[in-house]
This record gives sequence, structure tokens and C-alpha cells, in this order.
Amino acid sequence: MNSRIQRFTELFCEIHDLSEIGGLLEWDQSVVMPPKGAIQRGRQTAIIARLHHERLKSAELGDLAEELWAAGGLDEELRADLREIRRARERALKVPDDLVARRAEACTLAQVAWEKAREDDDFPAFGPHLQEVVSLTREMAEAINGDQPYDALLDDYEQGTTEADLKPLLSRVRDRTVALLDRIRGSVAAPLDRSILERAFPVSAQEAFARRLVTDMGYDTDAGRLDRSVHPFTIGTFRDVRITTRYDGSNLATALFASIHEAGHALYEQGLDAERYRAPAGRPCSLGIHESQSRFWENLVGRSRPFWRHYLPVLKETFPGVLDDVSVEEFYRAINVCEPSLIRVEADEITYNLHVILRFELESELVAGRLAIADLPGAWNQKMASFLGTQPPDNRKGVLQDVHWSAGLFGYFPTYTLGNLYAAQFHEKLREDLPDLDDRLGRGELAPIKAWLNSHIHRHGRLHFAGDLCRRVTGRPLSVDPSMGYLEDKFGEIYGL
Amino acid sequence: MNSRIQRFTELFCEIHDLSEIGGLLEWDQSVVMPPKGAIQRGRQTAIIARLHHERLKSAELGDLAEELWAAGGLDEELRADLREIRRARERALKVPDDLVARRAEACTLAQVAWEKAREDDDFPAFGPHLQEVVSLTREMAEAINGDQPYDALLDDYEQGTTEADLKPLLSRVRDRTVALLDRIRGSVAAPLDRSILERAFPVSAQEAFARRLVTDMGYDTDAGRLDRSVHPFTIGTFRDVRITTRYDGSNLATALFASIHEAGHALYEQGLDAERYRAPAGRPCSLGIHESQSRFWENLVGRSRPFWRHYLPVLKETFPGVLDDVSVEEFYRAINVCEPSLIRVEADEITYNLHVILRFELESELVAGRLAIADLPGAWNQKMASFLGTQPPDNRKGVLQDVHWSAGLFGYFPTYTLGNLYAAQFHEKLREDLPDLDDRLGRGELAPIKAWLNSHIHRHGRLHFAGDLCRRVTGRPLSVDPSMGYLEDKFGEIYGL
Repeated sequence: MNSRIQRFTELFCEIHDLSEIGGLLEWDQSVVMPPKGAIQRGRQTAIIARLHHERLKSAELGDLAEELWAAGGLDEELRADLREIRRARERALKVPDDLVARRAEACTLAQVAWEKAREDDDFPAFGPHLQEVVSLTREMAEAINGDQPYDALLDDYEQGTTEADLKPLLSRVRDRTVALLDRIRGSVAAPLDRSILERAFPVSAQEAFARRLVTDMGYDTDAGRLDRSVHPFTIGTFRDVRITTRYDGSNLATALFASIHEAGHALYEQGLDAERYRAPAGRPCSLGIHESQSRFWENLVGRSRPFWRHYLPVLKETFPGVLDDVSVEEFYRAINVCEPSLIRVEADEITYNLHVILRFELESELVAGRLAIADLPGAWNQKMASFLGTQPPDNRKGVLQDVHWSAGLFGYFPTYTLGNLYAAQFHEKLREDLPDLDDRLGRGELAPIKAWLNSHIHRHGRLHFAGDLCRRVTGRPLSVDPSMGYLEDKFGEIYGL
Repeated sequence: MNSRIQRFTELFCEIHDLSEIGGLLEWDQSVVMPPKGAIQRGRQTAIIARLHHERLKSAELGDLAEELWAAGGLDEELRADLREIRRARERALKVPDDLVARRAEACTLAQVAWEKAREDDDFPAFGPHLQEVVSLTREMAEAINGDQPYDALLDDYEQGTTEADLKPLLSRVRDRTVALLDRIRGSVAAPLDRSILERAFPVSAQEAFARRLVTDMGYDTDAGRLDRSVHPFTIGTFRDVRITTRYDGSNLATALFASIHEAGHALYEQGLDAERYRAPAGRPCSLGIHESQSRFWENLVGRSRPFWRHYLPVLKETFPGVLDDVSVEEFYRAINVCEPSLIRVEADEITYNLHVILRFELESELVAGRLAIADLPGAWNQKMASFLGTQPPDNRKGVLQDVHWSAGLFGYFPTYTLGNLYAAQFHEKLREDLPDLDDRLGRGELAPIKAWLNSHIHRHGRLHFAGDLCRRVTGRPLSVDPSMGYLEDKFGEIYGL
């Protein structure tokens, strides 16, 4: 029996090592690869993906998993690993290789078409490609779960959560956010001013400050790197977790919050159990929980008043003379301007969820076949008007703005808002456990926060599904109340509602 | 038949793609990997090596190769690919996996022991590790070629060349070099002065100059990168070929010649046939030929007088005020000082070969079992005295200086001198084809040199063995005369012999 467990462990660890290699190929491509290396890189990525898939589907792994599962009497960790491997195999075996290949090719073509269509503001040119991706995605989803295809997609990112769970949750977020926005629109307080963030901030000093911040958060730079890329991201795990950010010399917020956000992701990966990070159930719990870690640091810590009591003086030292006239209160308000806008990745803390929910509602209809591709831009614009009271002047700033759908990432968007919800609920619990949190933040003490997240979230990996993890950590199922309550209180105070 | 060829091609291309991935892992580890990532990287490297080995040994590849080989009537390229694959498989199949694993482990331990022994100047502590590596290397070599084990090792780096070929060749180099050194020692010319290379050269300007030089050589930086590392190297192929160098702010020569050297290697990889670079016989011919390309640029071009007629003014502009007093003649002499020294990697153009031949003679005896490990330091020092007229004060500057033996790289050293010999013989032919080469160099025209190497050497890959390639390019078998004649003429003139 022990030799069986040992072999099973070897096999899943190797599968993990292959995925680490895939991550490195991706990091290299985004950060340092010479441009002409793309064709060779495409082949390298393909062979790693194929090897990963082959090993997951291998009969040896399958036989061992079934044998151990049937034997019973295993510890909780191993049971969770078996659960993960059996589920991943089931998904892989239900979808024909040919369909996987056709869908991958359709996505590659769709992404090229999307880039061009966005450049030309030509949605009709992109439509047939998107149609093909949606059709093949639906075919794949139906092969996995014929009754609830969207759940099959969601399951890849947020295991244990269904469309039926999401709909009421996200509708409540939507309605309370729209109501909050209405109140903010009617506010009679003085208009907020973020122009202090748009002064001249030399990029090298921004980089120094970003390094200081992520190090203070507890990000171990001997087990990671901070680089630049077009879109900020985190890649890697455990002792090689790399983050990127982007800099704008006339906007302090861009690099600042991207760095905090990515370092939040990185702390999760660096905080996994050293004995378990290569195991299927030792990996991070879900995309929603991953996003909760980045949002936790970015918004609940990084956009809080006490945090800037400590860091505004550091910022002033970093940019001599640039922010001398700015008070903590002015800075706090500048980084918390709420203003409905067109682009998701530029949205503020309140309106961000509306961008996400709009996409969730549309993709849910697309996958169900209830919304035709030709009607998508109109549906987009209508929801923008209804949720945010604004409409894009063209499809570039509307339905063509995100890469996700062309890349076949259906079921991914809702994890962004789940992240916000989990983050706020965890934060509520953290405040109970550390009643003097604000005082600590005001002294720049971030270590207790990291330690709390390490022990309550990170080290548990995906031993439990996200919803169960939330119940265990906070004592309650996931609810919109902590997040919406936090937003209503915070912005109610800022806007004098 | 065509489908058989197609499948055979697919299989060997995938093996190549895996080796590209291995190269990237190595580059990343040397240039950007966070220090704590080493353990994960070790596993990633191991799984890629194992996959490479498994695929090479696979029955499918073997059966296809034998079937195609037996069928005959194939074109020259495919015959060469079959030759390469059959040979690589034969080697892989003759060596038991267990021996491969034991030897790999012994090398890993020996490298750690070597690093420590070098630090402590404690050869006896390293001895047993080296003994183990030598024993297992001999066992492996005998499994491949029981009659001529050293040839089995050499064959991995310099296919088609034997110890019996090398011995007379390298003895002639040794004897003519020792004689040349004697004449230089007796020279009555004014002593050469390289202090002008040891002024203050800001590293950022050195880097700018290195980039300018390698770009002028024709190195495509859109298909490569220039970075820093502890030891300069080149990794990658075709459209992703990365070079590194190292900088010393008070020594201009270090980064300068390392950059030219590595760019010479890189031009070879970038110059491979676009249709063939993933094929076994489309890869570079041998280590000796590879080294000929780096030495060609470093010494025959980069240490020539006409090259600096063009580049010294550029250098003066790059370091304003630092070299104003230096003439082309003084600079030429400063970069061509001949001075017997203890460390191979710091040796000049003449004495370098003696460092190599010393190692070749010793490792040949070690592998044959005619030299005991305990006697190695003494044998080393004796040869140093006899070849170079100097002896190391300790083993750190003697037998412990190189990583090669601890890494199991026996049969590798001679390729360095073969590189010098091939380079000079190619250079002689280039001068016949381009009689106005010096005038072109004096105008900074490097493109015709690259074009000549591309068409005569690079694009042929390893269709022919190194010796045959040399005959085809120069019309003659490899000889020591071009190289020794070049050195005798050049240094005869410099030292007024």
C-alpha cells in the first residue's frame, strides 16, 4: 500500500513539475523572450501541455487512483489529492482529444482576430471567430456536464461553485452596488480630486517604492522577482514566484496598486505548505480565493486610511518635493474616487464588480445559446447603461476590451467578484482576531496580516473547496454582506452620504 | 514511406524541442532565477532530461529509424539524421539507466565537493569524489566502446575524431607553441604594456560598446539577448539565442572579448538552416566547430590590427577622455600581450592551447587508468613547469581551477584547441576568398565575414563530421599549420623575433 501511495505521489508531483515548467515558459515569453522566439516558444509550450495532458490521462495514474480510492482508510490530505486527480482525469477523459485540439486552434485564431478587430473597431470581423469558440466551448462543457454546461466551465476555476449559487449572489451585489452608485451620484459633498496622483513620478523611484512595499508585505524576493510587463501578472509557486507590474510616469496609482495586487497573489503561492505545494490538493484553493488574496491587499489594506498614515511619509521621501502639500486625508480620497467608467481594468473598487457581473450575465447567456453573437454588442451596451449609466462610444471600449472570451475563458470572470466577496469576509474575521489592526497598519506593521493569511488560508491549499474554506475561516457561508457593508460604510463616509 | 518519414521527423523534432526547454531552464537559472528556486529548478531540469532520454530510447523511434535505414534511397539530409539518431540511440541503449543515474549523482556530489575543495585548497577532500566520477565515466565509456573508452567520450563532443587523431595533432601544437614561447622569452623588443586596458571603464558604457559590437557582427538581438552572468555563455538556437558576458570596471578586455566570443557562438546558432535546425543533423557540427566560430571572431577578427583601425575611434567616443592618448598600434599590442599564466580562462592566444593540451594529456591517462588521482596534482604541476615554465602556488590555481572533471566532462577539453585550429584554417580560406579582408575590416565591414561563415559553415549543420566539413570548406584535412603559422607570424612581428 505504501509503495502504491509513493508511486501515486511521484506521478502527481511530476505533473506539477511540468506545470511549473509551463509557467516559466509563459513568464519568459512575457518578460524577456526575444520577439522572434515566438514560434519556437509556441512549440515548447505545446509539448509541455501535451505531456501534462498525457500524464494526467495515463492508465497508470488512473489505476492507482481508483485502487487507492477503493481501499479507503487514507488520511485527509491524500483523500483530497485523490479527489482532485480523479476529477481532473474525469474531465480530461470526457473531452475527446480532437475537440481539445480544435478548440485550442480556434482560440489561437480568435485571439489574433480579436487583436485586429479591437484595433479596427470591427466587431463583425471578430464575430465568426467568437461564435466558433463559443460553439466548441459549449461542446466541451456539454461533454463534461450535459445538464449544466456553464457549471462545467466554472468548475475549472471555482470547484464546488455553481451558476445557481452565483446568480443570486451576484444579483445582490449588482443591485446594492447600483443603489450605492445612485447615492454617490446624488452626493452633495465636494467633488473628489485624484489629480495629485497624476503628477510627475519618476519610474525608477516608483520601482523603488514598489519593491519596498512588496517586501514590507512579506514577499520574499529571494524566492521571486519583480519585473515589468505589459499586463501585470504573477507566475510560479512556492520558492520561485515572480510578479510583474507596469509603470506610468504620470500616474502613481498604476504601478502602486498593481504591485500590491500581484504581491497579494504571490504571498499565497509563497505561503503554501512546504510539504504539499506539489500535491493536487496542496495547490491554491480556487481562482476566487486567489483573487481574494490580491484584492485583500490591494483594496482592504492598500486603499485604507491607516495604511497611508504610515506610507504617505515614505512616499513623500521617495518623491522629494512632489507630494509635500498632500495630507493623508487628501491622498486617501484621491485613491478612492468612485467614477463609473468604460474599462474594467481601470475601474474603481465599487464599479469593478458591475463590469464583472455584466460579463457573467452575458457569457452565461452565450454558453446557454440564448444570446446570439450578433446581438452581443447591443446587449453589452444596454447593460453598461443600466448598471453604470454610461455607454461606450465604440466596441473597442466596449465588448472588445477583454482577451478572455477569445481565449476561451468562459466561467472565469465571476471569480473576480468572488475574490472581492471572500476578501471582505476574511477581512471582517481578521479584524475580530486583531482588534488593533488599524493601529498596527498605522505603524506599518504588515507582518501580522501576512501571518494570519498564511495560517488561515494559504497553508490549507485546496484541501477544502472555496465555500468550505470560507465557512471554516469565518464561521459563515460566503455572503455579500461583509463586502457590500464595507463598501457602503467606506464610501458613505467618503461621499458624506 | 512518406508517412514514416513524417512521423520520424515529428519524433526527432519533439526531442529537439525538449532540449530547447532544457536550455531555457539553464539560462534562467544562470541569469534571472531567484536563489531559493534552485530545488524546484533541479526537479524541472531532471524531468526534462528524463523525457528527452525516454523519447530517444523509445521503441517507436528505434523501429522507424531501422526501417528507414534499411529501406535506403533517402536524401542526404535524412540519411544524416538517421545516422545521428541511430548513433545517439546506440549510445543511450548501451549504457544502463542505473549507471546513468549513479554517474549523474556522483557528478552532482563531486561538483559540491569541488567547490568546497577549491575554496579550502583541499585536493585530498575532493580526490575520492573525482575518483568516483572517473570510475563511473570509464564504466560508461567502456560500455560504449570497450576498446577505446576515451574515444567513446570524445565522440559525444567531436564525432568522428579519435584519441589517435588528436595525439599527434596536439603534440605538434604543444611543441611548436613551447618553441614559440621560448623565442618570445628571448625577445629583446620593448616589453608590451597592457595597462591601458586597466583604466576606469564605466560598466554601462562597456555594455553599450558590447551591444554595438555584437550587433555589428550581425547578431540579431530580436532573436536573442545580451545579459550578465558569472561565467559568460551562449544558450539557445535559431531565433532565440541568448548570450551573456561579465563586466569588470577596471578591465576593458574582460567583457569585450567575452562578448565577441559568445556572439561568435550565437551567429552559428542563428545561422543554422531554417528548415533543418530541429533535425539531428541540422544542429551545429561539433563542439570543436562551435568553438572555431567563437575563436574566429574573438581572436582572428577581434585581436587583429585592421579591426581596431575602425573600432578604436568608436571606443574612444564611448569612453570620452579615457583612451585619447592611445594609438591603434599600442592598443593592438596591449590586447596581444603573451604571458604564461596559471589560469586557463585568463590565458592569451598562444598559451591557451598549452592549458588545454595539459588537461587532455592528463585526462587521457586518468580514463585509461594509468594515472592515480593522488598523483594528479603533481602531474599537473610538472606539466605546467614543462609547458609554461611556471607552477601554481596551490591547487586552487592549479588542478582545482576548472569545473569540467567534477561535472564528468571528459573528452571536452580538446575541443577548445580544435576550435583554434579549425578557426585558423577557415580564416586562411576566407582570406583567399576575400583578398581585401583587411581593408574591409578597417572600414568596419563585418557583414561579408558573417555571410561567408553562414554559407560555408553554419547552414550545413552536422551533415558532415567536423573533419569532412573542414576538407569541404578548405580543400585540406585539418592541420596545425594554419594556426601555428598564424601565431608565429603574428607574434613574431609583435615581439620582433
